[in-house]
Amino acid sequence: MTAKPEILKLTKVASSRLFHIESMQLRFSNGVERHYERLRTGGHGAVMIVAINERDEVLLIREYAAGLEEYVLTLPKGLIDPGEDALTAANRELQEEAGFGARELSHIRQLTAAPNYMGHRLEVILARDLYSNKLEGDEPEPLELVPWPMSQLPELFDQAEFSEGRAIAALCLVQQRLSRAG
Amino acid sequence: MTAKPEILKLTKVASSRLFHIESMQLRFSNGVERHYERLRTGGHGAVMIVAINERDEVLLIREYAAGLEEYVLTLPKGLIDPGEDALTAANRELQEEAGFGARELSHIRQLTAAPNYMGHRLEVILARDLYSNKLEGDEPEPLELVPWPMSQLPELFDQAEFSEGRAIAALCLVQQRLSRAG
Repeated sequence: MTAKPEILKLTKVASSRLFHIESMQLRFSNGVERHYERLRTGGHGAVMIVAINERDEVLLIREYAAGLEEYVLTLPKGLIDPGEDALTAANRELQEEAGFGARELSHIRQLTAAPNYMGHRLEVILARDLYSNKLEGDEPEPLELVPWPMSQLPELFDQAEFSEGRAIAALCLVQQRLSRAG
Repeated sequence: MTAKPEILKLTKVASSRLFHIESMQLRFSNGVERHYERLRTGGHGAVMIVAINERDEVLLIREYAAGLEEYVLTLPKGLIDPGEDALTAANRELQEEAGFGARELSHIRQLTAAPNYMGHRLEVILARDLYSNKLEGDEPEPLELVPWPMSQLPELFDQAEFSEGRAIAALCLVQQRLSRAG
């Protein structure tokens, strides 16, 4: 395997309330030097929840996505709070966004969003044995809950508004896990 | 469907060579006002290529991901240049990053990376009927080419270094498309 590039210089170049942009001066193992930019990752990571109810439906939400200026269909997700582990964060976010808690939570795998310029990591959590319980979150408006049959994932993946790569990946990974488990 | 929030104010708050951060003052249809931040999207979009050779292997690359400070296994991808369409960009990037062109290119679907705070859109392109041809790209070093059997996608999805959500999604979508086609 190739040796990692040497980071010659790392500088904060711009910053806002939520984002921090870094400039990286890199020297690759072949001697080539390059100037990259990336978003700095803060916080404690994030979770995305695949919650499956007793009718074998996955709980989707419809929420406003500011990046697209559109309502989108996606999986519940959110940031891990300080002191929380990923499973606890997943159960809290599920209650805030979908109005359900889960008695059974398991970690599926870690996903990245755009590793070339972001360090953000997201833990995919499978939630089962659900019970109705609503927690108040920081949502500006109630989210629409859309239960979708797990037997109809190909039809879901045809929906233009279900476009988030990590959500499609999370459902594929859970389907693979469940089919292996028999 | 809920009416979209009204954008009361949109301000550029920070900027670097590659990134532009915007502040959005939003009023949701229930009257609640919120302050969001997002990355502004420039450019002409991007492509991610699922190139399958005559041995039914998908062409993966191993490249340095500055966001993670690690080498990662992923699919070839890149920005669409001004004046290019997505299929042309896909065929160019495939030749630059993997050393192959394709006589057959088809559009699978559009994916987003993090729609809550990014407008970035990526077109998944299926490439077949490959031929060997290397184009010079802007890579700082040659990328390692890793052909992977399409029959072993579950094993690929178990690899920690194959973590990019959109790449896992792209392979699932292509597998679904090919199995529908029979």
